[in-house]
Amino acid sequence: MRNVAVIGCGYWGPNLVRVFSTLDGCTVRALCDLDPERAASLQRRYPATRTCTDARAVFDDPEIDAVAICTPVHSHYPLARAALETGKHVLLEKPLAHSAAAAEKLVRLAEDRHLTLQVDHTFIYSGAVRKIREIVDGGEIGDILYVDSVRVNLGLFQSDVNVLWDLAPHDVSIITHLVAAEPRWVTAVGSAHYGRVENQAYVTIRFDGSLIAHLHVNWLAPVKIRSTLIGGSKRMIVYDDLEPSEKIRVYEKGVTMHNDPASRARVLVDYRTGDMFAPYIDKTEPLERSCRAFLDAIETGVPSVTDGRAGLAVVRILEAAQESMRADGKRVALAPGS
Amino acid sequence: MRNVAVIGCGYWGPNLVRVFSTLDGCTVRALCDLDPERAASLQRRYPATRTCTDARAVFDDPEIDAVAICTPVHSHYPLARAALETGKHVLLEKPLAHSAAAAEKLVRLAEDRHLTLQVDHTFIYSGAVRKIREIVDGGEIGDILYVDSVRVNLGLFQSDVNVLWDLAPHDVSIITHLVAAEPRWVTAVGSAHYGRVENQAYVTIRFDGSLIAHLHVNWLAPVKIRSTLIGGSKRMIVYDDLEPSEKIRVYEKGVTMHNDPASRARVLVDYRTGDMFAPYIDKTEPLERSCRAFLDAIETGVPSVTDGRAGLAVVRILEAAQESMRADGKRVALAPGS
Amino acid sequence: MRNVAVIGCGYWGPNLVRVFSTLDGCTVRALCDLDPERAASLQRRYPATRTCTDARAVFDDPEIDAVAICTPVHSHYPLARAALETGKHVLLEKPLAHSAAAAEKLVRLAEDRHLTLQVDHTFIYSGAVRKIREIVDGGEIGDILYVDSVRVNLGLFQSDVNVLWDLAPHDVSIITHLVAAEPRWVTAVGSAHYGRVENQAYVTIRFDGSLIAHLHVNWLAPVKIRSTLIGGSKRMIVYDDLEPSEKIRVYEKGVTMHNDPASRARVLVDYRTGDMFAPYIDKTEPLERSCRAFLDAIETGVPSVTDGRAGLAVVRILEAAQESMRADGKRVALAPGS
Amino acid sequence: MRNVAVIGCGYWGPNLVRVFSTLDGCTVRALCDLDPERAASLQRRYPATRTCTDARAVFDDPEIDAVAICTPVHSHYPLARAALETGKHVLLEKPLAHSAAAAEKLVRLAEDRHLTLQVDHTFIYSGAVRKIREIVDGGEIGDILYVDSVRVNLGLFQSDVNVLWDLAPHDVSIITHLVAAEPRWVTAVGSAHYGRVENQAYVTIRFDGSLIAHLHVNWLAPVKIRSTLIGGSKRMIVYDDLEPSEKIRVYEKGVTMHNDPASRARVLVDYRTGDMFAPYIDKTEPLERSCRAFLDAIETGVPSVTDGRAGLAVVRILEAAQESMRADGKRVALAPGS
Repeated sequence: MRNVAVIGCGYWGPNLVRVFSTLDGCTVRALCDLDPERAASLQRRYPATRTCTDARAVFDDPEIDAVAICTPVHSHYPLARAALETGKHVLLEKPLAHSAAAAEKLVRLAEDRHLTLQVDHTFIYSGAVRKIREIVDGGEIGDILYVDSVRVNLGLFQSDVNVLWDLAPHDVSIITHLVAAEPRWVTAVGSAHYGRVENQAYVTIRFDGSLIAHLHVNWLAPVKIRSTLIGGSKRMIVYDDLEPSEKIRVYEKGVTMHNDPASRARVLVDYRTGDMFAPYIDKTEPLERSCRAFLDAIETGVPSVTDGRAGLAVVRILEAAQESMRADGKRVALAPGS
Repeated sequence: MRNVAVIGCGYWGPNLVRVFSTLDGCTVRALCDLDPERAASLQRRYPATRTCTDARAVFDDPEIDAVAICTPVHSHYPLARAALETGKHVLLEKPLAHSAAAAEKLVRLAEDRHLTLQVDHTFIYSGAVRKIREIVDGGEIGDILYVDSVRVNLGLFQSDVNVLWDLAPHDVSIITHLVAAEPRWVTAVGSAHYGRVENQAYVTIRFDGSLIAHLHVNWLAPVKIRSTLIGGSKRMIVYDDLEPSEKIRVYEKGVTMHNDPASRARVLVDYRTGDMFAPYIDKTEPLERSCRAFLDAIETGVPSVTDGRAGLAVVRILEAAQESMRADGKRVALAPGS
Repeated sequence: MRNVAVIGCGYWGPNLVRVFSTLDGCTVRALCDLDPERAASLQRRYPATRTCTDARAVFDDPEIDAVAICTPVHSHYPLARAALETGKHVLLEKPLAHSAAAAEKLVRLAEDRHLTLQVDHTFIYSGAVRKIREIVDGGEIGDILYVDSVRVNLGLFQSDVNVLWDLAPHDVSIITHLVAAEPRWVTAVGSAHYGRVENQAYVTIRFDGSLIAHLHVNWLAPVKIRSTLIGGSKRMIVYDDLEPSEKIRVYEKGVTMHNDPASRARVLVDYRTGDMFAPYIDKTEPLERSCRAFLDAIETGVPSVTDGRAGLAVVRILEAAQESMRADGKRVALAPGS
Repeated sequence: MRNVAVIGCGYWGPNLVRVFSTLDGCTVRALCDLDPERAASLQRRYPATRTCTDARAVFDDPEIDAVAICTPVHSHYPLARAALETGKHVLLEKPLAHSAAAAEKLVRLAEDRHLTLQVDHTFIYSGAVRKIREIVDGGEIGDILYVDSVRVNLGLFQSDVNVLWDLAPHDVSIITHLVAAEPRWVTAVGSAHYGRVENQAYVTIRFDGSLIAHLHVNWLAPVKIRSTLIGGSKRMIVYDDLEPSEKIRVYEKGVTMHNDPASRARVLVDYRTGDMFAPYIDKTEPLERSCRAFLDAIETGVPSVTDGRAGLAVVRILEAAQESMRADGKRVALAPGS
């Protein structure tokens, strides 16, 4: 039985409390928030927990095995470091940290101490993304040629992070989860239409080979779009997260090239078009699977698919995108093997 | 009564023959194509026309007042130049020319000779784009903050031009028609998944101020999308060209900023959300309006909205995008006032 | 301060407990369910309430002012009668009762005792239906010519009521709320594809004049549809309850007739087509408005729009539809003024 | 080589001329229309044809093998009878005739004379309906439990026929093509909102067993809907004719009943939900297949799937629906084996 503390009781924290409360093998012991009223209000629904305003109390409590940190991005690193240093397993809200250097230190620290470090890239645990991964792994779509992701709506303008750090972690985590190739460079452009925080950004990630991944994230769109096109050499996928039931559509469509027998230089294109298939999507709550994976990793010592290294890969791309965006679209290379 | 010749009887030429045949004030006299069978086959439906395989015959015919050129892009410049030099008014299929230098020469030549030079950016004449322009001009959406355009489907892989020169002229012509600001620089990335011709490209155009326009053009997508988001400071527009009737939706949505009275440094954001309005769209065939505009420009000497200068502005952006794409996304500046 | 008891803690009851708990001017005092475990489990979340298994305990408690009854349809009448006889105000889950005779007795009893009797036709309180009513009352759509309602999905096969009594109360309550004319007769056909309980039904309600209302309710459909067309003499409305934001679309479309000047017998038809308008829909939870209306009716003595008489009108139509359905579509008249 | 004449050059006739002109094995010889200008205008595009205003000229011409009749419904019977009596094969625009008696006479006449009689129920030849039939025949959807068809839009108010005879032939022909069971009775209600011709109708067809087919046809709807739900015991189909590519969706959804081991009287319901599958739809023009089928039937003597008997079955249902509609929804029986 693992004792869990949740640090940060604002928007996302209560969801973690709710889910960990229902999972076998763990108990939520402590709720921590700088605002005592916020923790107290949550505590009323979970009378078996106790509250605190200083995370130190959690770290110093030998009874606590693991902490879930749901605080603003800039506090991820100091809180997670302190937690790991006191021997706690750590689950962090996305993104893992505000910089690749900080993320890297957390990864190393967790590895040195043999502790579980996981980032809550919840989409990775959704029925839709798990099904896409299954299709990709099964070879059904062939080679991935491109990924095009759009995540826009009239969203909350954040003051501490721009749209890139707020929305793109979802798409980047999905892309790096699906694509085996190494990212080589990133470009990004963005715009701050109000104030100084970018509310719209376009990010291009160039992988080895001809694979491009591209994102459009936007807090200032009139309609909500959560759509990803995945072009494969054999089939293509449309993933629309707003579809109530048919979130994934697999299209028997594509292009086949062959050499023109009449000319060595020319290539002929054949078009394939066929059936469409929308597989049934498991509806288990992704957050439940994410928390379950965290507990399993603690028990088995085998990292989950959203472990620290996966989280670091996402932060590296976000950081490169941020650098490119600040330089109006300058190409920013990613170190090989990073 | 203007006598018109159509040069190029392949895919688009027959449409021009059909439309000019029905318009008052002009007569289609000649059909020209390198392939005599193609011209002959079209001539059977328009018995009053005559055919030729050499455009010279058209240029040398003093009876011909105007030519419509619907040939591959690389022949636009030599054909249009010859036409202008022999005193013909010229309507060119999009894009105006294969390079900004060529386009510029055509513009200058036409101006020197007081001839009408027009490019057939047909979308500018569609009910939808005309209505958007009317809304923009009326101040209803306030300042344009961004334009995001997606034009993808499983399209024909061309061998002479890439997807940028094939599809992007539509979006770039719409954007430059709607946006009054000057474009400052362009970045683009693309990928050639089969052969050496890019079949997918992303283009960012940065205008003066914080306005970004962004395009996704793609010949290798499982679904057809023709969608443009226009973010304005007062309202926002979604233009979906595939919608049978409600192509334009105007959203009473947006963000209002004001200074936080409690803090000089902070800005407060208010969200507005309200009605949606889909104005009735005139269904006149855009090509008919385009041809009509060409004839009117000839009569009045007043250039149409898709005159040579408008066509040149489009080519400049395409050329810069091409240069950027070849250099993996390098930022390419546009000369001011160009 | 009104003290409320909720009888029936199954599917819908907990929602009423939740809402009444948040409303000013009332307190939830008692939770009653035949299954003591069900009441107890709900009580844990609302520690200030007490539980019982016999509704008698609620009726005999002089402290209780009002009861909300969320039990199977056949128990509505005996429970509501007992509640009214002991001086309680009554809110019933839809439909009001299992027969028009029973519904009529409840209405009379409530009126004799000057007690509030209300049926929880929640849709009437939704932002969408309130907006439609506002449009209808404002004369914007002219005369209502027809209402066509489709409410289908793969729904739970009930064993105590058929699809008519399960789903049609929603549509019939909306229709009678919007249409001022008197219903004259009803026809219905249905089918029980599994067992003996009809899982699909079509109902036609003919009103005075040429107005038809028609319903399709179905538990055995592959897709979920919640759509209502309202044809008006001036404008037409599409109400799609599954649309996340644009639930109502008002179309500037229709037909205008005028006499043919050339022939006294002939009528000429003109078609109008124009803008479409999707008004902003208030998102307040309908159930909150429903409960608020119940409390207001108790305070003021002025019945709400879903009072006993409104509930009776719905039951009369359901009963007639049931009779018609059992007789394979026989026309069943509704008594005038009923 | 069969010589074909087309009688009626209004809305549909030119399509038949176009298609027969391109088919091998036949030649369009004559175009007949009461309005000489209409035939002449069409003749200009088909110079090898000759025109006439009196159908007698066609019937008396021994060179003509077959006639296609595209005239108002009430003239179908006299024209087709005259054609058959002069030994011509006959293809009639839908519906076959204005009454079951007339349709029956035509069927008998054609059979007596060993001539091909076919009705142009074009939808039967569409890729979508052929695919549905294939799925039904393959047993994939199990038993058909219901068919629900909606065909509404702001349509042309006809003066000679009501919406039932104008639109319902499409749906009734599809239903009788797919359903093997015998229709037993029909009910219909309709409304004439302008003038005396019904512009909206609901039709219920009850087949042997628990199968209901239901239609909504409407000329006065704000949006265009062409949608059919087919509930099967194993799978369910949604056929949306307005979908550009995925016209048919086959849902792995349904209900399985089994007896409750705990109680002899009770039946337990299990819900199945699974993948969705949108098969590729052949895009050959349905009219081309319809005309081809007519020519094949002439050559082989084997009637097509839309032969006179199929057309008669449709007219019987339309006539019964008309009778029911005039009697405000009275149930009208269909003679067994009819």
